[in-house]
Parts: sequence; C-alpha cells; structure tokens
Amino acid sequence: MTWTHALTGAHLINGEWVASGVGFAQPCSPETGEPVPPAFGEAGAAEVEAASVAASVAFEEARDIPHHRWADLLEAVAVRLLGLGDALIDRAMAETALIEARLVGELARTVTQLRLYARIARSGAWLEAVIDSAEPDRRPTPRPDLRRIFRPIGPVAVFGAGNFPFAYGVCGGDTASALACGNPVVAKGHPGHPGVDELCAAAVLQALGDTGLPAGMFGLVQGSGTTVGAAVVEHPACEAVGFTGSLAGGRALFDRAAARPRPIPVFAEMGSVNPIVLLPAAVRERLDAIAEGLCLSVTNGGGQFCTKPGLVFLVTGPDADRFAEALGREMRRVAPTTLLSRSISGNFLRRAEALGSAVGVETLEAGCRPGPCRHSARLFAVSSAVWRTNADLHAEAFGPCTLLVICEDLGDLAATIACLDGQLTGAVFAGAADTDADVRRMAAILERRVGRLILNGYPTGVEVCGAVVHGGPYPATTAANSTSVGTLAVRRFVRPVSYQNLPDALLPPALQDANPLGLERTVDGEATRGAVAR
Amino acid sequence: MTWTHALTGAHLINGEWVASGVGFAQPCSPETGEPVPPAFGEAGAAEVEAASVAASVAFEEARDIPHHRWADLLEAVAVRLLGLGDALIDRAMAETALIEARLVGELARTVTQLRLYARIARSGAWLEAVIDSAEPDRRPTPRPDLRRIFRPIGPVAVFGAGNFPFAYGVCGGDTASALACGNPVVAKGHPGHPGVDELCAAAVLQALGDTGLPAGMFGLVQGSGTTVGAAVVEHPACEAVGFTGSLAGGRALFDRAAARPRPIPVFAEMGSVNPIVLLPAAVRERLDAIAEGLCLSVTNGGGQFCTKPGLVFLVTGPDADRFAEALGREMRRVAPTTLLSRSISGNFLRRAEALGSAVGVETLEAGCRPGPCRHSARLFAVSSAVWRTNADLHAEAFGPCTLLVICEDLGDLAATIACLDGQLTGAVFAGAADTDADVRRMAAILERRVGRLILNGYPTGVEVCGAVVHGGPYPATTAANSTSVGTLAVRRFVRPVSYQNLPDALLPPALQDANPLGLERTVDGEATRGAVAR
Repeated sequence: MTWTHALTGAHLINGEWVASGVGFAQPCSPETGEPVPPAFGEAGAAEVEAASVAASVAFEEARDIPHHRWADLLEAVAVRLLGLGDALIDRAMAETALIEARLVGELARTVTQLRLYARIARSGAWLEAVIDSAEPDRRPTPRPDLRRIFRPIGPVAVFGAGNFPFAYGVCGGDTASALACGNPVVAKGHPGHPGVDELCAAAVLQALGDTGLPAGMFGLVQGSGTTVGAAVVEHPACEAVGFTGSLAGGRALFDRAAARPRPIPVFAEMGSVNPIVLLPAAVRERLDAIAEGLCLSVTNGGGQFCTKPGLVFLVTGPDADRFAEALGREMRRVAPTTLLSRSISGNFLRRAEALGSAVGVETLEAGCRPGPCRHSARLFAVSSAVWRTNADLHAEAFGPCTLLVICEDLGDLAATIACLDGQLTGAVFAGAADTDADVRRMAAILERRVGRLILNGYPTGVEVCGAVVHGGPYPATTAANSTSVGTLAVRRFVRPVSYQNLPDALLPPALQDANPLGLERTVDGEATRGAVAR
Repeated sequence: MTWTHALTGAHLINGEWVASGVGFAQPCSPETGEPVPPAFGEAGAAEVEAASVAASVAFEEARDIPHHRWADLLEAVAVRLLGLGDALIDRAMAETALIEARLVGELARTVTQLRLYARIARSGAWLEAVIDSAEPDRRPTPRPDLRRIFRPIGPVAVFGAGNFPFAYGVCGGDTASALACGNPVVAKGHPGHPGVDELCAAAVLQALGDTGLPAGMFGLVQGSGTTVGAAVVEHPACEAVGFTGSLAGGRALFDRAAARPRPIPVFAEMGSVNPIVLLPAAVRERLDAIAEGLCLSVTNGGGQFCTKPGLVFLVTGPDADRFAEALGREMRRVAPTTLLSRSISGNFLRRAEALGSAVGVETLEAGCRPGPCRHSARLFAVSSAVWRTNADLHAEAFGPCTLLVICEDLGDLAATIACLDGQLTGAVFAGAADTDADVRRMAAILERRVGRLILNGYPTGVEVCGAVVHGGPYPATTAANSTSVGTLAVRRFVRPVSYQNLPDALLPPALQDANPLGLERTVDGEATRGAVAR
C-alpha cells in the first residue's frame, strides 16, 4: 500500500496536524550544512496540553477495546511505514547522514519489532491472567474469589533516539510496546530528525484510521529544546516515560518525573561503554580476527550505537602491544564517517580532545576531520591505574573511538573491571588456553553490572526476541529491572489489577469463567486454557 | 523447635548483636504508658555502614547458591518464628496493644507468607528462563544464542509497618520476597515495636545458621528517627527499598532514593482511603447488613489497617439518612480500642478534630477517649460538593473513623469518585435493583484508580495468593506496577540478564542445555521442560 505524506512541520494532536506559532531552526543536512525544508514548529504549553488531554480521553475510550485490536494497529503501522517507501529512507538520509543500507536494515528491524509486539498483543500473554477460586467454607474467614490481570497504565511519553530514527524513534520499540497493551503515546520528536518523526507519526495516524481506533491514541509534539519534553513529562495525564538518549537527558527527565506531585516511572536507556575484556590467550590466539571484529564494532555507523564498545581491557605485554598496533591499523583503514549532526560532531571532537589530552592517556590513532561533520576513527590507551582514578575515562564517548585499558595482570584486570558502572552489555573474549576459572571470574564480575553478557562476540547488533535484554544497572538505564527491546519490554507499561468477587459480566473477558479469549491462565496455581466453575 | 532469645537492644550486623553507644527511649506500653525494657540503641553511621557492607559481601558470596536453598531458608524462618512461641506474641501485645487473637492470626499469616515465597523460590518460576536458539546461517547476520533469566538485584532495605509487626515487619512480605530470590536484606526496625523486630531478626539469624547460609544476608538496624533509615537508603550498596507506612515517610524515602547519584527503586506502600461506593438499591435492600459489615471493617484492629475504608460514597435521600443512623448505631456499640502508640493516638485525635471542625463536615458520632491511647469510633458526613473542593478530606485518617460523602444523584456520585487519588482498593455495593450499567460505570471509574476492585465486599483482609494485588496508583504506592503481597511481589527485587553465546559450563544452571533444574522454560517461543540442543 503505497501512500505519501507531505511534511507540514506541525504537531499531531488528536488526529489533526496543528501548526504552532513559534518555529525552531530548520533541520540541517549533516553532510552539507544546508537547511532541509520545511521549518518545524516548537510546541508550546497549549500543544502539550492538547496532546496530553487527547491521550487521556483516548485512554478512557480505549480501555475496553479487545487486546487483539492493538495487534491489528501495530501491523497496520508496519504496513504504513513500508508504504512510505523511499520517501522515508531519503528523508532519514538527509536528516541523519546515516547510509542507505543501514537505514533500510533499521526500517526492516522496526517492522520486525512492530510485528513482534503485534504477536504479543494478539496472544494476550502479557495479561498474565490468574484466578484463585473462592473457598466460602474456609475457617476462620472465607476466601474470596480473586482474579488478576495486567492492565495498561495510561498515556506514555516517548522520547526517541537521534541515532536510530526508526527503531528507537516515534514508531520504535517504546511506542510499539506501549500501544501493544493499549496505552496512548505522546511522542516528543527528536530535533535531529523531525521530518522522519513526522512521517512516522503520519504512519501511525493512518494506521489508527485503518483500524478504526481513536486518533488521540497517538500524538507528536516537536521541539528543539528541553522545555517541550519537560512539559510532556510533567503533565498530570502522563503515566510513564520511555526515553533513549544521553545520560544527561535521561537523568533530567527522571529527576522531573520523580519530583512530580505524583511521581511516574521513567524507563530511560542512556547508553553505555560496553566493556570488552580480552583474556590473554584470546589476544594471542586470535589477535587479527579480534582486532578486525572490534574495529568494525567500534566504527560501524560512525560508532553511534549505544552498544558501541568504548572500553577494552587487556593485560600488558608484547601480545597487547601487537593487538593495539593491529587495532590501530584496522581503524586507520576505516573511511571517515559523517556523524548524525553538528552537535554530535562537536561533542565527539571535544570528547576526543579531552581523552587525548588527559594525563596518562596515549593517543594511538589521532583521527582526522575531513569535513564539517566527518570524522575518522580514534584509538586511545591508558593504564588501569590511571583509568581507575579518573572517572571521566569511564564515561561514554559517542562516536568512532575506543579506549584500551592496559592492566598489570589478571588480578589487576579483575580489580579494574570491578570499578565499572552499570552497562547495557559486557563481553569476555577467551582463548583455548585461557582457564575456565579466569573466564568465569571475569564473566561473574561483568554479569553483576550488565544487562547482556557476551562471550567471544561484539555488543553491537541487538537481537529483537524474547531472551534479549537491552537494559542494565544505572547509568545504563534508570530502571535495571526492565528492557527496552524484546518481549519483556511490554511489562514497563502495565500494572496489575485484582478483582474480588466480581460476577462474570463485570469481569474483563480475560478473566471470565468460560475463558472466551482462550488464554492460558493460572487457575489455582495450575496453567490451563480451560473454563472455570464457581 | 522451641527456643528463646533474650532481648539485647542491639543491632544485628553480619550475624553479631552489636550494641551502639547512643540509646533511644525505651518502648512504652500503649496501654499503660510504662516503659517496656530493654532500652534500644540508635544505629549510627558505623552500624549502617557495617550492615550494608555485610549485605554486599553476602550478596557476592550468595550469587551462585542454588535457588532452592532460599526456599529452605524461608521455611526455616517460619519454623524459628513459631518456635519463639508465646514470647513473640507477648512482646507484640506489650509493644503494640494489639489483641492476642489478632496477633496469633497475623503470625499464622506471616508463616503462610514465608511458606508461599518458599514455594515460589523452590519452583524457580520467578527465574522465567527463556532460550532463543542460534541461527548461524541467518542472513544478513547470524542470530546468536540468547538466553535470559531474572537475577536478584542485591541488598534490599526493608522498612516494616507499625500496624502489622509480623506480616509487614522484619520477617514480613518484603523480607520474604527479597530473600526468596537471594537478595540480602537490611531491615530498619520500627520504633514502635523494636523488641518484636529483634525477635524476628533473631529468628532469621537462627534460620541462616540452620540452613548454612551467609549471616550477612540479613541485618537489623534500630532507630527512632529518620536519620538511620535515610542512611540505609543512601548507602551505595543498597539496590532497592521496600516500605510500608505513611505517605510522608514513604515519599521522603522515595525522594532520597531518586536523588542518589545512582537512583534506586522504592516500593513504598503508603496506605489508602479505600473508597466504598454504595449504590441506592444496595442501601435500600441491605441497609442493616452493610452498616454492620462496614462498621466492623472500619473499626476492626482499631481502624489501623491500610485497607480500612475511610470514605463511603452514597446518594442522598431517606435511605442514606437511615443508613447513616444505622452505621452510627453500630459504631457506638464498638468497644474503645487502644491504638498502637501515643504518637498514633495523638495523630488520630488531631485528625478527628480537624475532620470534625472542617467547614461542611457533620459529626455523626463524636467518639470519646477513655484512656491515654484509647479511642471509640467516630463517624463524619459531608456533601460531595464540599468534599470535592477540600483536599484534606481526601487523605487517610488512620484509626477508627470513616467519612460519609453524600452525593446528589448517580451522576454526581460518578463525578465525585472520579476525583479520587490512587488507592489500594475500591469497593462497589450493588443491590438487585441497581442497574448493570450503573454498577459497571462506578466499577470502571474505581478500576482506573485502584489495585484491587471489590464487589459487595469489604477491603480489610488481604488474601495471600497469586491473584491478589496489594498496590495501586500513587499515593497508595510509589510503584503502581507492583504489589507487596502475593506471588507477584518477588518481581520487585529481580532484574533480567541476557547471556549471549555462552557455553553450557558458563551458564547459570537454569539456562543450561540439559535443563538440570527441571524448570519450565520458554524455548524458541514454546513452553517446555525439555532439554535443548545446540
């Protein structure tokens, strides 16, 4: 189903494109610095209020809509996204400078995500229906009939990422997992790619129409500063926040949400340095292969992945020296990349300069800057003793660079990685001659600090499936008990409700005696698809 | 297994009873005002540090302990609690003035809870093992082997309630659900019943010894002010907080936890007014029975339950007048109760006086105060119009009182209950002549605001089972997506971890190919207890 949407630069409020009086600077091409039309409006208090109220009203309307219709919606969004065809990819290329193949792949992944959440929505498994039968004759007190399901929590504010305009954007995992359970979404557009966000929002609007669902279920407000986002989070109708972006941005929203008269949860995925631990035999046995693979993981997509490995721990010695040389050689071969925006480019430059000039840090590859936003890859090295005492060296550096941390021996390696903050991922590379005990020791230290533990593999590339965790202890996220990717992500936006002594007619269908939805339910402790008798 | 513990007034730190230099006032009998020996020490920074570090060290030691051993621990705690016999009940009576039958019942419930969490721990169901097989030949990228389970999060700070010294105390649901998944606990004793808390802590210490588990898995620090609790929550080792108590207390801990350099989740259950909606036919048809049942629910245990119905909504008219009269009559018959402490008694008095003197509030039963902490029941009434505009009348009043809110008609009733804050429970009473549409309308409004929706029943009495939810939107709790009672409570203290391409030997047993623990696992989307092949 091919269709088009002419960009308006407006906000999507209750199914209407509403222009606001105040504009913000037109997006610029990171490649050329030239403006990319149209200009986009900056949402004010009135737009935020209108979108939030529309979401709240839609939530009331939508509470009894059968769960499979949210599956229909997500599938329709996937169809509408694909229906935009080249227009969507072209716009994303213009706004982000990401290359076509990468964006085509990301769009496919986004569609996969939408369909995964559609399957979850259709299965009703997220409802987790539990029935505990009454025991009217129990002493000293009768036991009531108690039934429980999970229910949607209400309007969710979604802040997409700059680096994944589709998969973590307006139609990304946060929106899909919120809609899957019947929660309205108020998305805040990313100032780096407002046009992509408008196209994605238009796709959701079309899909709401295709499936006959309330238009207020999805809104988009655009804005370049922090005011719009703060207003969305502080609106009384907002019940939860999904965010992907920087530590500073995520923490600021978390603080605002926690300080509300009625605090709400913030599921912020704020990136990570994704430590790689190279055990000695791995370096010795597979030096070139690891250098090649690691270089790709560090520089792919301009090093602008939240799972980019930013710290590599290894033990000093001739093998480490040869590895550093090989990695430097690989990184020199990588063509310079245009980063996502002037602001990202400037931040990368400052961060790289700070790294290079930090006491005790050696620059192995200095990189260069062949264009306004273009950068080649950089490689740094530091001793474990210096790294441990300089907290600046622990933080994420977004862009094509990584830092080798050279440890004295395996004991020092273990002690050093024990200083790591919370991470999305951590990887151990082990060779045939590394002992099981050493592998186990390093894996155990990382496991305590990460959401995903990897052996002999690179962290970039996040599989969309049931077993994946894209999360981790703070500062990787603000909610270590959750994931923003995979089936478990829907749990962020639901809450359990218990029903005591309700007759069948008043119960949600998922809990009615006859099991009209055919769900697997836990009845008196046993899983069953059968009906229950009173 | 009968055993005794002579109270020390000290803190339990890493298996030792450690006295601190500074004491706090001896607990007083609420009945007589006389001190109940011994004096208890006030924990300082050193004690909090020592207990927190011990918990952290124990967590590292305990991470690979098989999950069934936590079941053994909880069962041993139950045995040790029961083994204290009358000493425990006597101490609780002396410290709280709760009556023997109530405390015997609460202890039985506490043992039931411990055994429920023991069953959950033994089943391993909380691990939620998921395996997604590798697809090495997938294009464009191979799919890795990904496996996921939930893991304990680490040391949990537990703040027990004053009104349930056993079931929500040091050995209560928060501690049991934390220990069930292998999390160490640092409990803060309640200043109202430090002796009960020490006895319960002694029971856990004995149980740790009985089962050969690290003594640092459980610590107790005592204190009368907010300093000790704040220090526990702000300690870097603390990973989560379980709290049962007042809104002010819970919010203060929530704010501290959110303001930490590394924020941690707070699961605070802060009480509720538990609205009761009486539809006209219910009042007409079952006036006396409802008045009798409601009176019991309001005054039982001195009205000191977090599920006490504190607001009763009904429609004006002769039936409402007769109901108010009948309820007043019932409440007059209730013998005065000694409240938990002088402080609770003083708060109740102030709150009752404020209610009685609020503009537009009529006192139907003024109650009396026949002893230092003794109070008879009080009944107030107010119009819906006044209630809606006075937020003070929306808040919990802890103790034997309730407030009737008289609405103009059913439309006004619906509009009025839509102004309610988040609640643990909400109940609708419907008669044969009330229409389905009216019942449905009121139930839908309440459902949006509560953790447990009840038809024709009273909220007091929280069943310990799978389908129960003891939680709800703020201000009932700080985490609407959780419950502090029932099987789901364990989810508060775990986080998901994903393992990518790990060989069998490095995987937790729950995820190993052969399924050595015999768990039900989700393998490539299907539930199975079978082994997996690579």
